[in-house]
Amino acid sequence: MAIELKDKLMNWRRDLHQHPETGFLEMRTASIVAGVLSELGFTLQMGKEVMSEAHCMGKPDAKETALHYTWACDHGANDSFVAFFKEGFTGIVATLKTNRPGPTIAYRFDMDALDIHESEAFDHVPTKLDFRSQVDGKMHACGHDAHTAIGLGLATYLAAEKEKLSGTIKLIFQPAEEGTRGAKSMVEANVVRDVDYFIASHIGTGVPYGHFLAANNGFLATSKLDVTFKGTAAHAGGNPEQGRNALLAAAAATLNMHAISRHSDGTSRINVGELHAGSGRNIIAHHATMKVETRGEHAGINQYIKEQVESIVAGAATMYQVDYDIETVGEAIHCKCSEELAHILYRCANASSDIEHVELQKDAGAGSEDATYFMEAVQKNGGLASYCIFGTELAAGHHNEKFDIDEETLLPAVKILYQSVYEILKKEHGA
Amino acid sequence: MAIELKDKLMNWRRDLHQHPETGFLEMRTASIVAGVLSELGFTLQMGKEVMSEAHCMGKPDAKETALHYTWACDHGANDSFVAFFKEGFTGIVATLKTNRPGPTIAYRFDMDALDIHESEAFDHVPTKLDFRSQVDGKMHACGHDAHTAIGLGLATYLAAEKEKLSGTIKLIFQPAEEGTRGAKSMVEANVVRDVDYFIASHIGTGVPYGHFLAANNGFLATSKLDVTFKGTAAHAGGNPEQGRNALLAAAAATLNMHAISRHSDGTSRINVGELHAGSGRNIIAHHATMKVETRGEHAGINQYIKEQVESIVAGAATMYQVDYDIETVGEAIHCKCSEELAHILYRCANASSDIEHVELQKDAGAGSEDATYFMEAVQKNGGLASYCIFGTELAAGHHNEKFDIDEETLLPAVKILYQSVYEILKKEHGA
Amino acid sequence: MAIELKDKLMNWRRDLHQHPETGFLEMRTASIVAGVLSELGFTLQMGKEVMSEAHCMGKPDAKETALHYTWACDHGANDSFVAFFKEGFTGIVATLKTNRPGPTIAYRFDMDALDIHESEAFDHVPTKLDFRSQVDGKMHACGHDAHTAIGLGLATYLAAEKEKLSGTIKLIFQPAEEGTRGAKSMVEANVVRDVDYFIASHIGTGVPYGHFLAANNGFLATSKLDVTFKGTAAHAGGNPEQGRNALLAAAAATLNMHAISRHSDGTSRINVGELHAGSGRNIIAHHATMKVETRGEHAGINQYIKEQVESIVAGAATMYQVDYDIETVGEAIHCKCSEELAHILYRCANASSDIEHVELQKDAGAGSEDATYFMEAVQKNGGLASYCIFGTELAAGHHNEKFDIDEETLLPAVKILYQSVYEILKKEHGA
Amino acid sequence: MAIELKDKLMNWRRDLHQHPETGFLEMRTASIVAGVLSELGFTLQMGKEVMSEAHCMGKPDAKETALHYTWACDHGANDSFVAFFKEGFTGIVATLKTNRPGPTIAYRFDMDALDIHESEAFDHVPTKLDFRSQVDGKMHACGHDAHTAIGLGLATYLAAEKEKLSGTIKLIFQPAEEGTRGAKSMVEANVVRDVDYFIASHIGTGVPYGHFLAANNGFLATSKLDVTFKGTAAHAGGNPEQGRNALLAAAAATLNMHAISRHSDGTSRINVGELHAGSGRNIIAHHATMKVETRGEHAGINQYIKEQVESIVAGAATMYQVDYDIETVGEAIHCKCSEELAHILYRCANASSDIEHVELQKDAGAGSEDATYFMEAVQKNGGLASYCIFGTELAAGHHNEKFDIDEETLLPAVKILYQSVYEILKKEHGA
Repeated sequence: MAIELKDKLMNWRRDLHQHPETGFLEMRTASIVAGVLSELGFTLQMGKEVMSEAHCMGKPDAKETALHYTWACDHGANDSFVAFFKEGFTGIVATLKTNRPGPTIAYRFDMDALDIHESEAFDHVPTKLDFRSQVDGKMHACGHDAHTAIGLGLATYLAAEKEKLSGTIKLIFQPAEEGTRGAKSMVEANVVRDVDYFIASHIGTGVPYGHFLAANNGFLATSKLDVTFKGTAAHAGGNPEQGRNALLAAAAATLNMHAISRHSDGTSRINVGELHAGSGRNIIAHHATMKVETRGEHAGINQYIKEQVESIVAGAATMYQVDYDIETVGEAIHCKCSEELAHILYRCANASSDIEHVELQKDAGAGSEDATYFMEAVQKNGGLASYCIFGTELAAGHHNEKFDIDEETLLPAVKILYQSVYEILKKEHGA
Repeated sequence: MAIELKDKLMNWRRDLHQHPETGFLEMRTASIVAGVLSELGFTLQMGKEVMSEAHCMGKPDAKETALHYTWACDHGANDSFVAFFKEGFTGIVATLKTNRPGPTIAYRFDMDALDIHESEAFDHVPTKLDFRSQVDGKMHACGHDAHTAIGLGLATYLAAEKEKLSGTIKLIFQPAEEGTRGAKSMVEANVVRDVDYFIASHIGTGVPYGHFLAANNGFLATSKLDVTFKGTAAHAGGNPEQGRNALLAAAAATLNMHAISRHSDGTSRINVGELHAGSGRNIIAHHATMKVETRGEHAGINQYIKEQVESIVAGAATMYQVDYDIETVGEAIHCKCSEELAHILYRCANASSDIEHVELQKDAGAGSEDATYFMEAVQKNGGLASYCIFGTELAAGHHNEKFDIDEETLLPAVKILYQSVYEILKKEHGA
Repeated sequence: MAIELKDKLMNWRRDLHQHPETGFLEMRTASIVAGVLSELGFTLQMGKEVMSEAHCMGKPDAKETALHYTWACDHGANDSFVAFFKEGFTGIVATLKTNRPGPTIAYRFDMDALDIHESEAFDHVPTKLDFRSQVDGKMHACGHDAHTAIGLGLATYLAAEKEKLSGTIKLIFQPAEEGTRGAKSMVEANVVRDVDYFIASHIGTGVPYGHFLAANNGFLATSKLDVTFKGTAAHAGGNPEQGRNALLAAAAATLNMHAISRHSDGTSRINVGELHAGSGRNIIAHHATMKVETRGEHAGINQYIKEQVESIVAGAATMYQVDYDIETVGEAIHCKCSEELAHILYRCANASSDIEHVELQKDAGAGSEDATYFMEAVQKNGGLASYCIFGTELAAGHHNEKFDIDEETLLPAVKILYQSVYEILKKEHGA
Repeated sequence: MAIELKDKLMNWRRDLHQHPETGFLEMRTASIVAGVLSELGFTLQMGKEVMSEAHCMGKPDAKETALHYTWACDHGANDSFVAFFKEGFTGIVATLKTNRPGPTIAYRFDMDALDIHESEAFDHVPTKLDFRSQVDGKMHACGHDAHTAIGLGLATYLAAEKEKLSGTIKLIFQPAEEGTRGAKSMVEANVVRDVDYFIASHIGTGVPYGHFLAANNGFLATSKLDVTFKGTAAHAGGNPEQGRNALLAAAAATLNMHAISRHSDGTSRINVGELHAGSGRNIIAHHATMKVETRGEHAGINQYIKEQVESIVAGAATMYQVDYDIETVGEAIHCKCSEELAHILYRCANASSDIEHVELQKDAGAGSEDATYFMEAVQKNGGLASYCIFGTELAAGHHNEKFDIDEETLLPAVKILYQSVYEILKKEHGA
């Protein structure tokens, strides 16, 4: 079965790679995932059943969503399922009940792509082997195509071996991990309320091929904020004093945000990544938008930075007598993996002939992940959670137009996750 | 002839209004102007013959120019002339030589439109009467369509009455007055070197219908600057210290530019009208562009402000260790109309039954005009120059999406300009 | 009498020059003035009788006032009068009632000095002739010593010629003109409520020796604001996030204040002249003070700038979560001299053999004066007001450590003012 | 001897506490230290012999130094030694040669006080017990009075037991630790070139009474920078454009410095602790000074921040066309204590009956220390170095006006240091 699955993993991944869909628009992807899982005998929950509408952050508007639905229908979506995702609630929870007593174990896979134009260079493998993104300006440049494929691979193994298992297994396919926008809505829909063990995973992130990290504790808490200033236009030559200058408010806010004090408790970050303001050279700018990101070594530090941002935006608006708005379009917390579960994963990987080097736990990267919401929820209920990383050789860094993974990583990843089910059951049954 | 011309003026103006072309792209407009003038017997100089390539400011690039040429050819350009303007040198000087001794008198008309989307409201006359702009996002919202029509009307009168005239008359059709980009290139091509009398004119600008202002001295010297900062991108979470932040440089430059000191010699202005920076929320921005405008009651004050801007941009680049570029994409000076010529125009308007009220001179508005370059050049050579304004009722202010003029103003304007030829000749011949 | 008075004027001026007293501390000066005027037979009103306590701006605190009182008593104050000024209400209104029907005519003289250390250079006349300031760091560097002497000179003439006069004459000796702090309190105490003609005057200001300006309309409306930010100190290394940074609030406020938009109605000014913040290199600064000045061509423009300052200070405080305070410590308006009174002064000066050149009216300088409050009050009641300038050669500009006047100007100035009484009476009596 | 020494320690400490002297002015202190050590038989090196003049940072000028010398002479300095410190080179190295083979062991004690006004509250022990600072505005608020006393106590023990010792012992009394200004000059004078073991120590810093920390690795590298901007004054109303605004340059520099990016390698700090600018409300400020402090978890991070500060200052000067100067008035690096020596100290403290709890190593505080220069120099030469902390109960935090230590800590501290000599010798002799 392994050889056959290896091909399937590659095919799934390459099909998804060619059809990248960004957050809350993973309609084609989700429909295909649903089709496979349904066929394998999983019970499916989809859309608003597994996503709280109120907690979706940075979701595209109705127009963009409708437009993309047409695209998905025209580009190979599974007809039997795509309609479930029409409104952009693209999450899936697939459950396998063994009807034998045992714990509930959940695995999280993210499905979304990025607004990046994939490299057209011939030395870029997807170009050379003809599975480059077919959508201009969108690309799977973080490996979520691989994650989704791994999820389907795990499902395949589980379905095949169902009779050997006990307890319940849930596979969570999450939308909109980029921008840390999607997880919270699934947590708020209670999809992990009954979960005893939760495992999220990522490919790459600097971990070399053949290596495995059982527990990454290095994620920073983060908030993604869209800030808008609205003022009054006026002719800059004729009557500048009648203007209310949104561009100046944004410039002042920018400088003072970056001047937010460091926090003595640990790492913090602030970035105004984008600023767009004004509608003409000779017009007092009446509109400005900013894309802002805060981070903190823990949620408290991130909250501190976020509160300073809020004060600064309010202050800049007062200074220039303009209106303002702050919208949270993404948010994640930090995590502390459960050591017991880390040890289980460590053992699984150690036992694998595909893995040369296994690390128990580390603070890797200074990135953020909203799987942390699932982890927090499970741990609060007394469950165990971990975030593991499958090393792979990267052609270029994450979010780069030449990002590419080594597909040899896919099958070993499936196997380790599959093995983790047995190790967990072994532990539960006191074996 | 007047009744017939009144219709022609309306038709020219409405045709141009429907086909607005922005600066250095007035290919259709210029081809039609050239066709009419050629037919009327004027000698034409066109393109680089009357425009110094080195002094064209803010000219669109070759790609945009080529694209627009195709559009012009497809939308009613005069086939016999449009090729002369293919590269975007859209200026015309039309000369009428009487072969009788006498002065050289020149009139300037500007032809370009604006990047404004014309109102689709039904109460907007061009919409109601079906001559709204046929080009999305472009509009004659400053009256240059009327100016061009008036120029053609004046040409018609002059051609008809050629035998009564002496000396030489030059009609200058200028591109790219918006952004004060086109006049300098025509001055540098010496089109007014031989001119003894120069008259520029504008419609509207707050002067009421039936009023006429013989000499407007209120233009501010101005510079239009495009500022660019180029830094280095970096992941805002992972290694922010490796970035060179162009957005912060632009924000700092913006604030400090607006803080440039007032000048005790007179009025000054500074505006950062647009700021666009950054390529992603979680990326240290490596690119920023700003549209900046300076103004001064005279060229010295404008130069003072411009020099401060240059220091501030250089300083901001030093602060953030980024590269910068400042491009002057428009420039104009102030003017002081020649009183003698103002009196001539005053007399012409006073004698007109269409005009209720005539004003000799005023400082109107706080706008800018690059006709001032022509005026300075003529005055430096010992000639006389004035800038007059034909009052009209405006539906909405200049550069507004609902801007519209009263077409009843067109014929009286033609007549006053035509009359000014006689008054000048009268003065010259000592009559 | 003129020769004798010339010596008196010089002696008064030099005595005052040696004993400069700053705003609301002119105790020695006022006591001497009161002594002279009392002896001449004027009826005196002093202190709070002529000053509204609530409208004294920027008055020194009780401690400094008490300390200076001791100094004044020790340095030649007039014992009979100094106690009236003990609390720093140092204004005097001296009235001469002729008991003959006629108008009430008022003259304003200011008495205060500056916080400037007078030059010790030998080529500085007060040093050479041994009447340099005896107080370190204080100096009559604006000529108010001369103004006070001229006032006493005028009083001397008036007293001598009392029998020839009719109506009532009021001599107003005002404290704290520097910083435009004192006039408003006298206006609010109604000292010009009954005044029909009001004349303020200044020496120098760029008008050459032998020249006279009958009406200066060039004063800018102004506000002097003391801004304070109060935050929370914290160790900059140990726990910077616990600080509330008043220094950063002040820096942000400063930049954004200077970026306040120009006003299309006319001249405006903004200046943060002083900024002091922080108590140690390694401490998050918890305190900052700023000395701010706004000006406008008229009160509306000044008010516009002042309101922007208020918004910016409030905004900066919000940004950094600090408290703030804005205190108005000085204020003046612009003025428009009454043409009729200007003509009277013009005639007086023209008739004087001491004056070579007389100008009727001008917009001189871009300074400010709180005599404008008196002028506005008188004009509102239907009276006439003017502000005239006696030209003199200055050794160095006003407020310079080498400032010095030509004492030859004093007697002619007295004569012109004295003559104005006759011209006004002549006009009133229809002569 | 212990009981007698306990009194001596208290008396020394209280005498020094009453006579606080700030950096490079510890003339009275040093003269007393020299007197005691000389009497105990130590060989003394003083002044420029142990301090490189070129590496003294932030040293007071000659005038202040001379003035303080007079004060010291008048307030109980030791007449036999004070002249050695007249020019402010107040360092001492006291050497005890046993003339028996063995290692060279050095101990560092700092002697300087702070510019803080000691609390006059009665509940403040030094006030109550009448040993409050006798110098207004100066105070031993960091415990260096205790450090100096401990140093003298250690000297006393060593002298008494000299016959039992081998090798060489050097006691280094350092000036100007506050502001991290003095150590570098002693290191550059090679006072630890021959040192095999180096121990610096501090009292308090949050370590509780009865606790001992053998190795503190938590010091941040730091630079103390004095920044000056020099522009041109001008009248803010009359001709603001002629000014070159140093205050605005400083405000812009301040904001942008605080906006320096975080560093992904570890902790960083930036603080503009003081800003003073301008000479009058209505004058364009021509002068500004800033007290700036940078810190980094290691020297590389501090260097990164310092370089950004330099760019920002240069950029702000370019922006406002003013001159600038950056002076480094203090600097320190981080340290990594030698584990072997930490273990020795750990054993010494563990064996002490006075100590309840001993910690081997920690990253304590986010302060800075220039003892790190000594440590680096010793370690580079192959020696061992550690920085230990004697816990004590503090009445208020370091640098607070109510700071006070528990004098019960003094004798145990002396004993541990004394014991460390034995432990080192034991280790050297292979015992």
